[in-house]
Amino acid sequence: MPQLSDATRGRVLLGGDYNPEQWPEETWYDDVRLMKDAGVNSVTVGVFSWARLEPRPGVHDFGWLDRLLDLVHGHGIGVVLATPTAAPPPWLGRLHPDTLPVDEDGRTEWWGGRQHFSHSSATYRRHAAAITEALAARYGGHPALTMWHINNEYCTYDHGDEAAARFRGWLRDRYGTLDALNTAWGTAFWSQGYGDWEEILPSRRAHYLKNPTQVLDFRRFTSDMLLECYTAERDIVRRHTPHIPVTTNFMPLWFGQDAWRWAGEEDVVSVDLYPDPRDPYGAQEGALVQDLTRSQARGPWMLMEQATGAVGWRDVDQPKPRGLNRLWSLQAVARGADAVCYFQWRRSRQGAEKFHSAMLGHAGEHGRVFQEVKRLGADLATLGPRVSGTRIEADVAVLHDWHSWWAGTQEARPFAHADLPVVLRAWHRALWEAHLTTDFAHPTHDLSRYRLVAVPQLYLLTDAAVDNLLAYVHGGGTLVCGFLTGIADEDDRVRPGGMDARLRGLFGIRTLHEWWPLPAGGTVPCDGFRGTLWSEELEADGTADETVPYRGGELDGLPAVLGKGRAWYLSTLPEPEALRTLLTRIAEGAGVRPVLDGLPDGVEAVRRGDALFLLNHGRDEVTVDVPGTHRDLLTGEVADGSVVLGRYGVAVLSS
Amino acid sequence: MPQLSDATRGRVLLGGDYNPEQWPEETWYDDVRLMKDAGVNSVTVGVFSWARLEPRPGVHDFGWLDRLLDLVHGHGIGVVLATPTAAPPPWLGRLHPDTLPVDEDGRTEWWGGRQHFSHSSATYRRHAAAITEALAARYGGHPALTMWHINNEYCTYDHGDEAAARFRGWLRDRYGTLDALNTAWGTAFWSQGYGDWEEILPSRRAHYLKNPTQVLDFRRFTSDMLLECYTAERDIVRRHTPHIPVTTNFMPLWFGQDAWRWAGEEDVVSVDLYPDPRDPYGAQEGALVQDLTRSQARGPWMLMEQATGAVGWRDVDQPKPRGLNRLWSLQAVARGADAVCYFQWRRSRQGAEKFHSAMLGHAGEHGRVFQEVKRLGADLATLGPRVSGTRIEADVAVLHDWHSWWAGTQEARPFAHADLPVVLRAWHRALWEAHLTTDFAHPTHDLSRYRLVAVPQLYLLTDAAVDNLLAYVHGGGTLVCGFLTGIADEDDRVRPGGMDARLRGLFGIRTLHEWWPLPAGGTVPCDGFRGTLWSEELEADGTADETVPYRGGELDGLPAVLGKGRAWYLSTLPEPEALRTLLTRIAEGAGVRPVLDGLPDGVEAVRRGDALFLLNHGRDEVTVDVPGTHRDLLTGEVADGSVVLGRYGVAVLSS
Amino acid sequence: MPQLSDATRGRVLLGGDYNPEQWPEETWYDDVRLMKDAGVNSVTVGVFSWARLEPRPGVHDFGWLDRLLDLVHGHGIGVVLATPTAAPPPWLGRLHPDTLPVDEDGRTEWWGGRQHFSHSSATYRRHAAAITEALAARYGGHPALTMWHINNEYCTYDHGDEAAARFRGWLRDRYGTLDALNTAWGTAFWSQGYGDWEEILPSRRAHYLKNPTQVLDFRRFTSDMLLECYTAERDIVRRHTPHIPVTTNFMPLWFGQDAWRWAGEEDVVSVDLYPDPRDPYGAQEGALVQDLTRSQARGPWMLMEQATGAVGWRDVDQPKPRGLNRLWSLQAVARGADAVCYFQWRRSRQGAEKFHSAMLGHAGEHGRVFQEVKRLGADLATLGPRVSGTRIEADVAVLHDWHSWWAGTQEARPFAHADLPVVLRAWHRALWEAHLTTDFAHPTHDLSRYRLVAVPQLYLLTDAAVDNLLAYVHGGGTLVCGFLTGIADEDDRVRPGGMDARLRGLFGIRTLHEWWPLPAGGTVPCDGFRGTLWSEELEADGTADETVPYRGGELDGLPAVLGKGRAWYLSTLPEPEALRTLLTRIAEGAGVRPVLDGLPDGVEAVRRGDALFLLNHGRDEVTVDVPGTHRDLLTGEVADGSVVLGRYGVAVLSS
Repeated sequence: MPQLSDATRGRVLLGGDYNPEQWPEETWYDDVRLMKDAGVNSVTVGVFSWARLEPRPGVHDFGWLDRLLDLVHGHGIGVVLATPTAAPPPWLGRLHPDTLPVDEDGRTEWWGGRQHFSHSSATYRRHAAAITEALAARYGGHPALTMWHINNEYCTYDHGDEAAARFRGWLRDRYGTLDALNTAWGTAFWSQGYGDWEEILPSRRAHYLKNPTQVLDFRRFTSDMLLECYTAERDIVRRHTPHIPVTTNFMPLWFGQDAWRWAGEEDVVSVDLYPDPRDPYGAQEGALVQDLTRSQARGPWMLMEQATGAVGWRDVDQPKPRGLNRLWSLQAVARGADAVCYFQWRRSRQGAEKFHSAMLGHAGEHGRVFQEVKRLGADLATLGPRVSGTRIEADVAVLHDWHSWWAGTQEARPFAHADLPVVLRAWHRALWEAHLTTDFAHPTHDLSRYRLVAVPQLYLLTDAAVDNLLAYVHGGGTLVCGFLTGIADEDDRVRPGGMDARLRGLFGIRTLHEWWPLPAGGTVPCDGFRGTLWSEELEADGTADETVPYRGGELDGLPAVLGKGRAWYLSTLPEPEALRTLLTRIAEGAGVRPVLDGLPDGVEAVRRGDALFLLNHGRDEVTVDVPGTHRDLLTGEVADGSVVLGRYGVAVLSS
Repeated sequence: MPQLSDATRGRVLLGGDYNPEQWPEETWYDDVRLMKDAGVNSVTVGVFSWARLEPRPGVHDFGWLDRLLDLVHGHGIGVVLATPTAAPPPWLGRLHPDTLPVDEDGRTEWWGGRQHFSHSSATYRRHAAAITEALAARYGGHPALTMWHINNEYCTYDHGDEAAARFRGWLRDRYGTLDALNTAWGTAFWSQGYGDWEEILPSRRAHYLKNPTQVLDFRRFTSDMLLECYTAERDIVRRHTPHIPVTTNFMPLWFGQDAWRWAGEEDVVSVDLYPDPRDPYGAQEGALVQDLTRSQARGPWMLMEQATGAVGWRDVDQPKPRGLNRLWSLQAVARGADAVCYFQWRRSRQGAEKFHSAMLGHAGEHGRVFQEVKRLGADLATLGPRVSGTRIEADVAVLHDWHSWWAGTQEARPFAHADLPVVLRAWHRALWEAHLTTDFAHPTHDLSRYRLVAVPQLYLLTDAAVDNLLAYVHGGGTLVCGFLTGIADEDDRVRPGGMDARLRGLFGIRTLHEWWPLPAGGTVPCDGFRGTLWSEELEADGTADETVPYRGGELDGLPAVLGKGRAWYLSTLPEPEALRTLLTRIAEGAGVRPVLDGLPDGVEAVRRGDALFLLNHGRDEVTVDVPGTHRDLLTGEVADGSVVLGRYGVAVLSS
Repeated sequence: MPQLSDATRGRVLLGGDYNPEQWPEETWYDDVRLMKDAGVNSVTVGVFSWARLEPRPGVHDFGWLDRLLDLVHGHGIGVVLATPTAAPPPWLGRLHPDTLPVDEDGRTEWWGGRQHFSHSSATYRRHAAAITEALAARYGGHPALTMWHINNEYCTYDHGDEAAARFRGWLRDRYGTLDALNTAWGTAFWSQGYGDWEEILPSRRAHYLKNPTQVLDFRRFTSDMLLECYTAERDIVRRHTPHIPVTTNFMPLWFGQDAWRWAGEEDVVSVDLYPDPRDPYGAQEGALVQDLTRSQARGPWMLMEQATGAVGWRDVDQPKPRGLNRLWSLQAVARGADAVCYFQWRRSRQGAEKFHSAMLGHAGEHGRVFQEVKRLGADLATLGPRVSGTRIEADVAVLHDWHSWWAGTQEARPFAHADLPVVLRAWHRALWEAHLTTDFAHPTHDLSRYRLVAVPQLYLLTDAAVDNLLAYVHGGGTLVCGFLTGIADEDDRVRPGGMDARLRGLFGIRTLHEWWPLPAGGTVPCDGFRGTLWSEELEADGTADETVPYRGGELDGLPAVLGKGRAWYLSTLPEPEALRTLLTRIAEGAGVRPVLDGLPDGVEAVRRGDALFLLNHGRDEVTVDVPGTHRDLLTGEVADGSVVLGRYGVAVLSS
């Protein structure tokens, strides 16, 4: 199968979405001149060009795209060519209103924005296939073509009647019989027993609390329908160009797609990443998404979109301060990216995203932003041959699963303040601050290569996943689990005792009496630290090797943390420093070491291949001790025992 | 007529909703074993069993319910049998979409949750009657049957076309002519004059501010339509079993039902009660609802649902700490309950309420919760013969009326921060803290048996209600009224002068110049205390015997409180301690005494029959002085002059 | 053309909306007695009388209105007669559902409130024209008639199919060809190219971010459709009574109408004004609206509605304290009003606005409010002959434009916290506090008569507007512009460089690198003050005469304020006192002087004709130095060098 390296060919790509149809053709010449100037070697074209390519049903206008591809190819720039199916032209909605999505309240989503298509609409799928076919037929052989980009940020839904019909089909496939469905959904509750497939609805507005398994299955179905849309287009382009890799761009830690499953259907895993420059944990957010994406890719990945600054929709929408764009771009490379791309090349003057920053802003080539992009281009050109295609080794895996996330966000739950993303971010951040390199993994993946497996929260665990975790520990691995793990089975059925019995045994828990959620901002005193978000009234079975108790309050003396052999259970979320300390201690016990000892706060270190990336996320200069002598690949300078990093500074050391 | 005592037969019932259809039959045997263990003597069955009982239209499956009733009866447990009409099966909605409710915005509420029925749907009513008939025919003679439970927490609405037609009929009945309706609704305002009954709509989405009397009448209509649904089913079961009492479970202080009117149609008044364990005024909330329910029942009543802990939907959903469940259950008995029941017996593993606590939690019989339920069972078994059927005497009545509440919550009102429930709770809490036992009454009830009548807020008063209040005072009663009382007449027409003239005369008010609502959290200085929520620019007529003036600000020197003979008016809501002091003083003047003198804060005292309940709502041990020698019915111990109550402790003293 | 003076005839009118149809005819006699008592000389009749005037389609009932007009005329009170078209009778909606508006989500707005009409409905327009015709035919010759009042507070919208058809027609008129439309809307973005007029929709619910130019045009269209409704009715009454002036009442600084364009279609410009009595800047809000309205009227204007106190819908709805109603009424006269009217004369007892205050409240003629109205009536009777028809001269113009406001509120913008009204209010308030009298002007108006032109924010500037501003400066005027000015052209297309190049040149800006919006409540340090809301990364071109730099942070040393000759640019919003100081300094440089020197804080001074109004907005007595000897027109007293103003006190001095 083709892969990312077929497009990178030993380089780290630099580029972005390019929308030449928004500009007069004379501007294109300015574009390629400046692209060359900045070191751009890849552009993503056609993401929203359907109405331009097919202005009337079945009538195509490819001339402009022919000229564009020839032009950029002539300048040595590769093209990631997109199917334009994320935004159907107005004529489709007008001629075929059945292509429009309907929300839970029965409201139609009209054209005039984007993504006004129902994943379940046969008409939409037919038209999407046709334009994809035409595009692949015409450009499959174009020498500029380096990759296919299918659709864009799949994120739609539909609750209408055609979706209802497809949902029923999906459920038949999943359950076979209505009896099995009724059992899985627990329809004995509230008189929901189905006697005919036709009675089943999508998740729709109800008077009070919808069946949570129905909602869970509707989320599974939605992810699967979007995936069908993707694979249908992928198969078309693959038929034309089996040698060209295919991707679709994920949104970061996006709720709506089972990205593990999706990644398996891609040649290249790519992601869009927009941390807020004002977020004091923006770097940590980036690291999390990069680790997740690299793990989905099982190797190098593509940063398909990021912003040089503002995004237009953010509440307080500040640009990146000087140097931050380069820092975060090199962070992505450090954590496995072989392509650093942006939305978009040239900032629009019209439309809904004209306040979204670009590589070439409204200020033009003399703007600060473009000057910084040029510097990044030089860096990537230098680094590319040394890091492209290389890998990152991690001893720690963090488990994440979309089905668990979906199940855990049902309507009436006592843990809304402690939902998965909050806990996942806190744990990953603690590991990042401890300078432990982490992969992500699915709960049923082979975990044996990891010394430590961390489960921040997996409310739903299938039997296979429980088996896997137990086998991992029994095989010598160290497991640390957070609260709200192993509560429900695959159908969101609460496991006997309120938490999986084998997991309770693993951690030394006899009885989980009660959950004690904490109020927003509240804490619970524990021995040596304070817990946040959550606490539990646990009864230990006496087999734990180590117990950290709650201190004071209703839970006084009961276990907050249990360690039994290589298995640890945290019934609360320790405050950040305490969590870092605890995970560091557990990691040490598992033989996991930080990338480098004695790193200053705010300095990130990652080994990729034989390069050691050092990234200073602070604005103050810091000195980093690095035993031995190294050469900085970016500057060529030799570092002997230590290296000095300025504001947002980066060094890439090689032995 | 049958009554609650027919079911209790000298006991205080303990039990809960039981949903055997959610469990395999082998679990049932475990259930009855544990019920017996805990002293459970009543289960409520079938509340949401329609799809199980009638899986296809007209096809019944009663076998499982036959077996269940036989089983529990064999163990001496009585059954409160519910009509399952609160959750129609999916086939009803699919075959008859006209049964689905439509909201104010025209959105359909689909099945998939519960209560997806329109009270106005003839089709729904026909099917509901049929399943009720079938159920009554089959189980009317079953020896386990102790009570009928109709539907569940009636709370639906419908704004669709069938509701519109019924609304027109209801209005014809109320007004007779369009002229009368136009007059009552004040349709001269904003060109709303109706010339044809068919022009009249339910309350529906409008551009700006709907006619408030139309909305008021639509609320009256909604309550009445739901009541028609109730009485239709009640009449069916009554025809089969004239000796079996009938109830439907109210929600506490629920906006949607005129519970005075409803209670008159029940043999047993029952209520569901879910104070938040974290609410520092949870006990006061319980007391209010219990007093209200007892007053509606005019004697013993049934606590149909409460939770042993979490409810699933609460923002911060903590369990009850050790002892609180028993305390609050005994509080209900103290205030007149002869049945203490829960939602639900065994906690569900699936569905939307699996995080709602139960008597038997996910932790099982060794869980703390079940152990505490067992202790309560023993207490109730001890107390039952001494208190069941006994009554509570109160010298104070608090007036409450749904029509006034409905009228007072119209869209554009300057008193949103001071709405009835806020003021009602504050006043009842003050009386509770003053250890004055209170009934509730309707403004047209005979009040002559009370020494003191308190009107926290009755924005709307009918002429008959005004007559009644005046007659009460003229007959020697003491009346204390809060602001926003007597503003509007039955049609929500503002009374001349902005407040009923006779009431103004009663209190010594010449002119109500202006309302001065306070901002949220704001206070107004008065002589000796601070007022909250509200103030008024009043001109006294010089006839008052006592005046407490405002001090400072725009209202400086104007009357905040007026006392004229036995009539008092409060134009602000004094801060809690001041309100308590003022009401205590007024009560003393009326000859009303607290249950016991010198009670510590947080200790509640209630006399029921010849038993004196003492309940410690604090976590610290307290000593309560009780003149004379008593025996504690719970422990059998003798108390001589005082009794010690531990954390959440209860004593029930008998002379 | 007729004008306001035809109605005032040398007086300042006092009056209000009068709804006799809500009252029995015997009350009318009480009304006219009290009107005379209070000095009322104008009533606005019929605003919501459609259902009363035309109870059945085509059937009229004018008898009551005949009697009413005769009655008030007999008492010397003039009548502003309204077309009743803001609230169609129920029969219209029932017989013609096509007259009902539909919102962006497709929801119908039903009758039961008011303004349930679609501006695009041909049926509505036909019926509105018919009742207007009937009214004008019957009352055009009535001697009581002094003015026509068309509809009421035009503010509706429609997103349905008939509106869609009209929108397409409006777009054809605007753009001529689809190519022109596609260019203007930038439909190359997100595949929105239109190939058929029928494909174009109103602004409707979309999945993500609607096309901002489409939304902008839909706002323009909505304003124009409402204007068509207005002019259609106006033309009918004008045909009958060419000598009677016509108005429609604006809401203050209302988003939905291009009031510059509307004012051009009125004989009298009138406005409704409801500052919150609790707002510490209520007086400033009043001054802003009064200046804007006077500028739209190009002379005396009419205060059509204000409240004596509460409005019913305000969150904390306090009355006006003693004296405030008079103060704010005289402020309107000071700033050019020749009519001071209220909603409404007699407070309703029923309907959605019965908690809205009136001249005659529920407390009646002995109420404080009515007594204060009487005092105002006496004041106006005294002042009228001296001020009616006189003008106000201003050296400063503040620019405002609805199209810019509309464009600036698109969905995805980085300046939501810094939107036009926030900045406009801050600037006008600074000028008010500096005692500089200000007009408002449109960006393309002739500005040459002003010494200083202030542009708080005009995101969108047409080419003609940019030309106008440059010509103004080149002609010797002083211009001071706030940030976010000149960003977009008429089609909301960002101008090259991110801000108009000629404006950048005018201010000495080489490059606008980045916008740095501030978080809510955040500030940015500048040399000598702190900025709020916004900051910018600017590169100066070295031509500025004066630069105030940012100090500290990312922008350290960059220009915050640039002054180049007579052109000034503020890239942040200085805190209030700093803004006042800066604008005062710039005004002084332009030769603009305050109305009076040495005015105490909170005292407003305005010269109208040869009268000097002094208004004390504080509750404490102040002494105002006024050089020379003057007579107070209100009291007849002579002020020699100074005048003392009590709480909310007013003096109107004449030389």
